[in-house]
Amino acid sequence: MKLVRYGNPGKEKPGLIDSDGKLRDLSGVVPDIGPAQLGQVMLTRLRKTNPAKLPLVRGTPRFGCPVAHVGKFIAIGLNYADHAAESGMPIPKEPIVFTKATSCIQGPNDPVMLPKGSKKSDWEVELGVVIGERARYVSQKDALAYVAGYCVVNDVSEREYQLERGSQWDKGKGCDTFGPIGPWLVTPDEFENVHRLDMWLDLNGQRMQTGNTKTMIFNVPKLVSYVSQFMTLLPGDVITTGTPPGVGMGMKPPVFLKKGDVMTLGIQGLGEQRQVVVPFKA
Amino acid sequence: MKLVRYGNPGKEKPGLIDSDGKLRDLSGVVPDIGPAQLGQVMLTRLRKTNPAKLPLVRGTPRFGCPVAHVGKFIAIGLNYADHAAESGMPIPKEPIVFTKATSCIQGPNDPVMLPKGSKKSDWEVELGVVIGERARYVSQKDALAYVAGYCVVNDVSEREYQLERGSQWDKGKGCDTFGPIGPWLVTPDEFENVHRLDMWLDLNGQRMQTGNTKTMIFNVPKLVSYVSQFMTLLPGDVITTGTPPGVGMGMKPPVFLKKGDVMTLGIQGLGEQRQVVVPFKA
Repeated sequence: MKLVRYGNPGKEKPGLIDSDGKLRDLSGVVPDIGPAQLGQVMLTRLRKTNPAKLPLVRGTPRFGCPVAHVGKFIAIGLNYADHAAESGMPIPKEPIVFTKATSCIQGPNDPVMLPKGSKKSDWEVELGVVIGERARYVSQKDALAYVAGYCVVNDVSEREYQLERGSQWDKGKGCDTFGPIGPWLVTPDEFENVHRLDMWLDLNGQRMQTGNTKTMIFNVPKLVSYVSQFMTLLPGDVITTGTPPGVGMGMKPPVFLKKGDVMTLGIQGLGEQRQVVVPFKA
Repeated sequence: MKLVRYGNPGKEKPGLIDSDGKLRDLSGVVPDIGPAQLGQVMLTRLRKTNPAKLPLVRGTPRFGCPVAHVGKFIAIGLNYADHAAESGMPIPKEPIVFTKATSCIQGPNDPVMLPKGSKKSDWEVELGVVIGERARYVSQKDALAYVAGYCVVNDVSEREYQLERGSQWDKGKGCDTFGPIGPWLVTPDEFENVHRLDMWLDLNGQRMQTGNTKTMIFNVPKLVSYVSQFMTLLPGDVITTGTPPGVGMGMKPPVFLKKGDVMTLGIQGLGEQRQVVVPFKA
């Protein structure tokens, strides 16, 4: 199942992408796609819905983040060996965990705004994991049972704020518009192997990031299990799992986002995002 | 005004502490104390309520966190010069910002649970600032207009998870039960100067932390303004502003929490907390 939320910001309705790629209205079945709909019981019920009987949605509405009311937006750092190398940082012995402010979350194609005075804003295509059931001290073996689905995340990052303004990264990770998520929340049954997905990001049509989820250092079961040792994961929480090589900071010389740039990015089976970079606006 | 939320976890009702220290039921006036009630319009309306006309609450119910639906729980590190020294860290040039998982938030007197295998759990009495209005790039001069009130926070911390498991602190800050908040949300009009408040924490009746908000390195207007440059603060967000000296990690030899310990802590005008330390329970 490919679940979406479509419509104007703050007024999104739940929807479903059918096997022909058409958008169907789910609002007669569930009020939203959020914490109350992400558990196995509700997902199984949704799966029994016949998409052909759902109303077709006309036109091409905006997509919002496919999960409403994300409670925690947890991020994993340096989880691809090549990206750690390009960042000049050692391969971590265990996952690095930081936090993106939930106020940065937006739709997959909404503009990304440069923070005031930002000179080092950068991109990171990532696999997002959406939690479906309360997960606390879960084992790696059981971890996937707590996952409602997957999505594309652009972990937009301001490198000066992240790395040059003290030791803690959160300052550079949660600026407004720095969390495009979507377009789809795709349930795990759609994947033969979530660790064999191609991923990519283009800047102005030029390929910058090329990767595959198979080169993750810590895989999804490990990450869900690991994070659940430190905090209870709740339905609707999102873990974004790190980025492959090709970020702007790693270029020689570094390349950072500027007004008018266009980022397009995607992950195999999870759809594509497109963001225009806009200047700071008060 | 001293606002509270009282009752069983997840079923708290809004209340008010009157000038005699008695608990009054506010549920006939507002449905809860949360983001929708923290703006100036609603607080002004609440202020016009005559406490004597509100029903008295019988008995001594549990207090919950005085703010429902905290969206972001932002924390400031090393914001008291003496605490930076005892932690063996330099005085920061600008505020250190990290995040506590919102899932760690609990009532002020709920037990604090040691994480599985924890050997270095520690205490930190702190002044919490509750945001009342959307704050984005606000100046220091204007910052206090965005504050709904203040509360006591115990920024419970697992030092091994925070400092020995990679560079990012969030792992050791958001464990379940590590965020006691309350008992009261006290509106700013109750303070002559929020930067002249005594604060303290006792472990098993022995004074461990003694401080005063006057020794903060970065004061409340600076912190609200500063954080708002990196992320938009929303009603119900909480910023906890750092701890004075006397944490367990700074003792020689270090002292950490163990089963059966009792923490009591408070800040002048903001009430007191009491937490029994309990072992990990699956």
